[in-house]
Amino acid sequence: MQLYGMRISGNCWKAAQILRLTGHTFDWVETDGNAGVTRTPEFLKINPIGKVPALVMDDGVVLVESNAILLHFAEGSPWLPPPGLARTRVHEWLFFEQYSHEPYIAVARNIISWRREGHLYPDRLAECARRGAQALDVMEQRLTENSWLVGEAPSIADLALFAYTHRANEGGFDLRQWPSVHAWVARVAALPGVFTLPSREDRA
Amino acid sequence: MQLYGMRISGNCWKAAQILRLTGHTFDWVETDGNAGVTRTPEFLKINPIGKVPALVMDDGVVLVESNAILLHFAEGSPWLPPPGLARTRVHEWLFFEQYSHEPYIAVARNIISWRREGHLYPDRLAECARRGAQALDVMEQRLTENSWLVGEAPSIADLALFAYTHRANEGGFDLRQWPSVHAWVARVAALPGVFTLPSREDRA
Repeated sequence: MQLYGMRISGNCWKAAQILRLTGHTFDWVETDGNAGVTRTPEFLKINPIGKVPALVMDDGVVLVESNAILLHFAEGSPWLPPPGLARTRVHEWLFFEQYSHEPYIAVARNIISWRREGHLYPDRLAECARRGAQALDVMEQRLTENSWLVGEAPSIADLALFAYTHRANEGGFDLRQWPSVHAWVARVAALPGVFTLPSREDRA
Repeated sequence: MQLYGMRISGNCWKAAQILRLTGHTFDWVETDGNAGVTRTPEFLKINPIGKVPALVMDDGVVLVESNAILLHFAEGSPWLPPPGLARTRVHEWLFFEQYSHEPYIAVARNIISWRREGHLYPDRLAECARRGAQALDVMEQRLTENSWLVGEAPSIADLALFAYTHRANEGGFDLRQWPSVHAWVARVAALPGVFTLPSREDRA
């Protein structure tokens, strides 16, 4: 399989992470959205929507949408509970991540730390700060009395939210303000086989 | 069951629609987010995130996130394929809807036609017009040669995308520019048991 992704993207990290955790091998094809590679004719043949991650499977079928890829490979594994309330809770967190978390925390990180264009978008960053803090508040509420986002074991809900939360500092969020989230980040990072995104300092 | 929702919301429509299609009865509790009801202490006790839809089930368990509610009640029904590629395609559309479609098409509709504040947000509406058109382009591409978004039968992918697409005109999108989407809207609306959102004219 070939995974087209951007090394610093949490969404692409999700796809690589679940493939590794479920014992799949794949080739990584670095595809830099910030540099416009996802809008080239060559890439649009692979994913007409022009987004990474895009996973080309051995039969040529292409999977997109990071959380759909998490669900695809987690099915039947300990990372996804069977149908029922626990699975629905996982789904709730996955949609929360894409609607209420990623658009603020990931976007702030990309603008501030990778594109280094924070000075160009003060209004947008102010909204990211406000809405991102609300998202972290929701996580804090759950994690104050629970070790994992769903049930008593790690699931793809934890992976989906870990993707950008563990680098939220690069978007201007100081996780010490959300101590239960901070502790949970360390807990997820310590799981066997879990790897982390490159940090700003790795590049510097 | 009690479904807290806003009558004009496509996200709330999804929850009511799948409950009806799968034979569940429920009481509707009108909860107007535009009027601030979702931020009252009473409602925050039901859903601490302050969003509708929120479904209180008979055992008191509360489900949130419209697409998670679709998945919950569609499980085991003809509206959701079994695990495998077809189900993953449904997931891809559900995440596409929440990330790339609803934030532009639903938001434009609410600002223009329901809050009637279009004059206050010209920049935001310009982005909604651009990104919403991209989302409709993606749907058009799929529907040009297919009757339904996934496989050969309607699924909750069609319901999720129908929610706001069938009132996209109220957000400034003329569906005649996307003829295959336009025809698909009529096809979904004609399915037994499918109902539509109130239109701006219903209120006027």
